[in-house]
Amino acid sequence: MVKLQKDVDAIRINTRTEELAACSSTSVGVTRLPFTVESLKAESLVEEWMKAAGMTVRKDALNNIIGRYEGKNPAAPVLMIGSHLDSVIEAGKYDGILGVITGIEVVQTLKDNGIILYNPIEVVGFCDEEGVRFHSTFLGSKAIAGTFTAEDLERADEQGITIAEALKGIGIADPYAYKNASRTPEELLAYLELHIEQGPVLEKENEPVGIVRGIAGATRFYFEIIGKPGHAGTVPVALRQDALLGASDLISYIENIAIQNEPLVATIGKLTVSPGASNVIPGLVTGTLDIRDLNVDRKKKAIDAILTESERVAKARGLQIHFEQVMEADPVYSDEQLIKVIEESISELEGSAISLVSGAGHDAMAMADVTNVAMIFVRCKDGLSHHPDEFVTVEDMGAGARVLYSTVIKIATK
Amino acid sequence: MVKLQKDVDAIRINTRTEELAACSSTSVGVTRLPFTVESLKAESLVEEWMKAAGMTVRKDALNNIIGRYEGKNPAAPVLMIGSHLDSVIEAGKYDGILGVITGIEVVQTLKDNGIILYNPIEVVGFCDEEGVRFHSTFLGSKAIAGTFTAEDLERADEQGITIAEALKGIGIADPYAYKNASRTPEELLAYLELHIEQGPVLEKENEPVGIVRGIAGATRFYFEIIGKPGHAGTVPVALRQDALLGASDLISYIENIAIQNEPLVATIGKLTVSPGASNVIPGLVTGTLDIRDLNVDRKKKAIDAILTESERVAKARGLQIHFEQVMEADPVYSDEQLIKVIEESISELEGSAISLVSGAGHDAMAMADVTNVAMIFVRCKDGLSHHPDEFVTVEDMGAGARVLYSTVIKIATK
Repeated sequence: MVKLQKDVDAIRINTRTEELAACSSTSVGVTRLPFTVESLKAESLVEEWMKAAGMTVRKDALNNIIGRYEGKNPAAPVLMIGSHLDSVIEAGKYDGILGVITGIEVVQTLKDNGIILYNPIEVVGFCDEEGVRFHSTFLGSKAIAGTFTAEDLERADEQGITIAEALKGIGIADPYAYKNASRTPEELLAYLELHIEQGPVLEKENEPVGIVRGIAGATRFYFEIIGKPGHAGTVPVALRQDALLGASDLISYIENIAIQNEPLVATIGKLTVSPGASNVIPGLVTGTLDIRDLNVDRKKKAIDAILTESERVAKARGLQIHFEQVMEADPVYSDEQLIKVIEESISELEGSAISLVSGAGHDAMAMADVTNVAMIFVRCKDGLSHHPDEFVTVEDMGAGARVLYSTVIKIATK
Repeated sequence: MVKLQKDVDAIRINTRTEELAACSSTSVGVTRLPFTVESLKAESLVEEWMKAAGMTVRKDALNNIIGRYEGKNPAAPVLMIGSHLDSVIEAGKYDGILGVITGIEVVQTLKDNGIILYNPIEVVGFCDEEGVRFHSTFLGSKAIAGTFTAEDLERADEQGITIAEALKGIGIADPYAYKNASRTPEELLAYLELHIEQGPVLEKENEPVGIVRGIAGATRFYFEIIGKPGHAGTVPVALRQDALLGASDLISYIENIAIQNEPLVATIGKLTVSPGASNVIPGLVTGTLDIRDLNVDRKKKAIDAILTESERVAKARGLQIHFEQVMEADPVYSDEQLIKVIEESISELEGSAISLVSGAGHDAMAMADVTNVAMIFVRCKDGLSHHPDEFVTVEDMGAGARVLYSTVIKIATK
């Protein structure tokens, strides 16, 4: 167990989340889209804190901000710690930025304890993970992972401003130098990301910190259920071909499949009922089904079961049911070695090490294309995120930072 | 059993439905709103047919068209036969008008057979039953039943034209004389209405004609189910407060309640899901529940069971569920004596007399306020109505008219 002269400063982390939260275009919640006045304001704070922690700071062609704390061997692969500085509209104060601030706090604590590790440490604040402005996620981490493309630079926001134009607008002379932002696998030791859980599991288990085993793969379907509209007064219920009754059968079945296959999650998020009059039997239901699981086989089996059940329901109720797959994202697994180290750190510092699956995407997902990744989740109140009421206690921020610090020390050693 | 010299003419009935169908403002289906050029065209055809059948014809202040076939005793109470001449938008050819045309056919057949009954017979084509133009149903039959009000005359259509103005526009000098249209219970012997079933029961039972025991009462609710929105990837299904899962529980329960309490019908016709994004757990569902039954007690018990179940679901799933009653219509019962006579007529002419409940409203509902009523339903294809594909065979029209004829002869006898 690492003996600290100086501990991480949880109060400072909290103060800094508040300072960054003030860099917002809305007074309700935090709204910080990339390449804006408020994001530049946030970056200058981050730059100041990085420098105070002994880092040299630079920005790459995508406006990712990168602080480097030199290692004993400057040529050794870099241990990268990061998360994103952008937010959704009227977001909370912690999603993304907590990972950047705790990264800086870890380096500050290394400096305060006079520790230089074998590997260089780089803390990155990614420019855009949420994808709100340009409708494409992981822009910053994709650039570093080498999967960003020239086509991406031409993506436009609602005002028709492209990413390339937006970057030039904030002083990036040549956005087409984005290739220079990319790193090779040889240049990187690993990528670590601390993030709020955005779910209720840690709160339910009464644990401040957990290990993320992986980021679930997601399959998304559009479905339609075609029945027969009819007069709500004149068609006996047993003789109806009510599309909504078919939908209801499927919704209940899908819930059971999800519960039986936990931690698989399945969500019907959109549902429309037509013709949608109080005295007309629904003739058409359309909707979306989103299924996520780290375990690809289990997800496949669940989907097969749902499709089989949809055929049974269609037959039993005289309906036509069609599912069309509209999205498929592969899962990303945390590196086993990194998991083991994080597990050790949590056990030493906080107690039992709960293993979680992230159902949401993160920069780690993009970074997995270039290096081994692992994530640490910190408990958030009611599992709430993307909302002004998003909340993390000062104690839990400290706990998260301490686990990250301990993990970094163990990894960045020859 | 009545021995006919001349039978009803089913071909003529069919030809007349086609002629009236041509009085439409749309080329797809039949669209004949009240007090329009196409409704005047239809009325002049009806007037011509009534006169040919030996009736004297007049219009009342609401533009109901009334043909009178004098009885042996002109002072005896009138046996009224009727239905409506208006339609919904892009409707079928039979809903409403089949009752008017078969009424005329019955009188024509009386005339052709040289029969004068004890009571005068009046055939009425009501001006507006569907309520599409002024958003209020049974305008014509309410005027005759004496329940139409001066306030009703001020109802406006989408163009801001009131009923009073529309009536003046087609040459009704004083719409405020609507009170003169009303009849007293003493003036009427009974009201009979033949109508298409608008449901699939006769078709399923392979019977052309059925007796309507009554028109179901209807209760309508608006409901909302409040849960907790959340990230579709990060909240385990077992920990969700998914408003749509609660809705699904209730929808399935309501279907079972309806099937257990047949012929009660229950319909969730409207349903909206919010926020309605594929990656967000539904936090709010709103909808409508429409329940109809001739049996008031059974409907009450079904509603109580649904409300109790909604409380159970709310508790089990951590949701708030609110039901708000927005409409209540009492049932109307066919007169037992009239039912017996119709039953006899069907048995003599067509075979077994199937007893039905109408889940849809009809002019008979309004007429029940002033006299005894009964209805005869005629089979329609696939139970379809309010649609261009609405269809009745010539044979079934003949069967319906024959039952109506036989019933009239049995009733309008001192």
